[in-house]
Amino acid sequence: MNVVTKLIHVESKGETDMMDLTGDVEKAIRESKLRDGVVTLFVQGSTGALTTIEYEEGLLEDLPVALERIAPKEAVYEHERRWHDGNGHSHVRASLIGPSMSVPFVKGKLTLGTWQQIVFIELDTKNRSRELVAQIIGE
Amino acid sequence: MNVVTKLIHVESKGETDMMDLTGDVEKAIRESKLRDGVVTLFVQGSTGALTTIEYEEGLLEDLPVALERIAPKEAVYEHERRWHDGNGHSHVRASLIGPSMSVPFVKGKLTLGTWQQIVFIELDTKNRSRELVAQIIGE
Amino acid sequence: MNVVTKLIHVESKGETDMMDLTGDVEKAIRESKLRDGVVTLFVQGSTGALTTIEYEEGLLEDLPVALERIAPKEAVYEHERRWHDGNGHSHVRASLIGPSMSVPFVKGKLTLGTWQQIVFIELDTKNRSRELVAQIIGE
Repeated sequence: MNVVTKLIHVESKGETDMMDLTGDVEKAIRESKLRDGVVTLFVQGSTGALTTIEYEEGLLEDLPVALERIAPKEAVYEHERRWHDGNGHSHVRASLIGPSMSVPFVKGKLTLGTWQQIVFIELDTKNRSRELVAQIIGE
Repeated sequence: MNVVTKLIHVESKGETDMMDLTGDVEKAIRESKLRDGVVTLFVQGSTGALTTIEYEEGLLEDLPVALERIAPKEAVYEHERRWHDGNGHSHVRASLIGPSMSVPFVKGKLTLGTWQQIVFIELDTKNRSRELVAQIIGE
Repeated sequence: MNVVTKLIHVESKGETDMMDLTGDVEKAIRESKLRDGVVTLFVQGSTGALTTIEYEEGLLEDLPVALERIAPKEAVYEHERRWHDGNGHSHVRASLIGPSMSVPFVKGKLTLGTWQQIVFIELDTKNRSRELVAQIIGE
């Protein structure tokens, strides 16, 4: 059993940019030389989130619509009254989806469905450069 | 330390069917012969989700009502315009709840509360046959 | 590789109390003597949840507002009709955010962003005394 830490660099293009990280995570597992285990992905920061989705253009528009129902951009946020950085809704959305996701791998392959990709969702209101953590534990 | 992979077969009965998997996960841990560790559960597919709930008939009706607020079945989905499979809302709901959950076990027992069960939520619009992954890491 | 189990005791002050557990989790990792790995945090109970947030007073008000959109306190809950404990919305909110979170640590430090804290969210309608599980796997 070993632990291998990999960083995945992302350059997001603004609010609700959804980036397919499946290839990056597959590469991290390949480089770890581990065959069976779990990769724990984690966003270092409080305005981004991780999940899986069928990565196709329709859903890339549909998911942000649901986020707007949960935490509308134009609602009043106490965060905004104090900090004036315009991203109260970004924080709320990120906390609700969550910063971490754990994905098993077996014989070197992620156990994803055929139409299921790992995505990072940028929830902040501007382009961001980030280092996501992929902590791989296995044998 | 070891990694043991188990599959949990589920046959869901249509949209928002919630299935109590606690017994299946307990069985997987028992068969793994591991005493202390973490089981990472994962849905292979983009229209199902995992969480815990007090598994009683009232909440099995209440949770779907909240999902309808977040991603109503009758809203317009771009996914639908492109693919015509009637499940845009299923994908959005699944991505927001998330496909993975990690549960510790200690001395062979899941660290669940008394009124807390592990559930798979079918979010697709039809009956589905699925293999969930239970990746058990421990000693 | 080792597994170390720690309990984190919390005394919540009623509904939507959000408690910063970052220091408690850091202490658990320090005491485990492990350098690199993953800590899996888990709520034993079905009316609390875990996530990360920028822990500042504004957002502690903003997140509950979003939860009220998803599962309003005054809506009708079937759970309430059966059990009369007044916390149907608490259960629904807890299941949607989720009871578990996995955070990597590297060289003994959690891989959190500068403005990102680990929080437990009390979703039940009264003060609760709870033991959260921190299952630490690493080397």
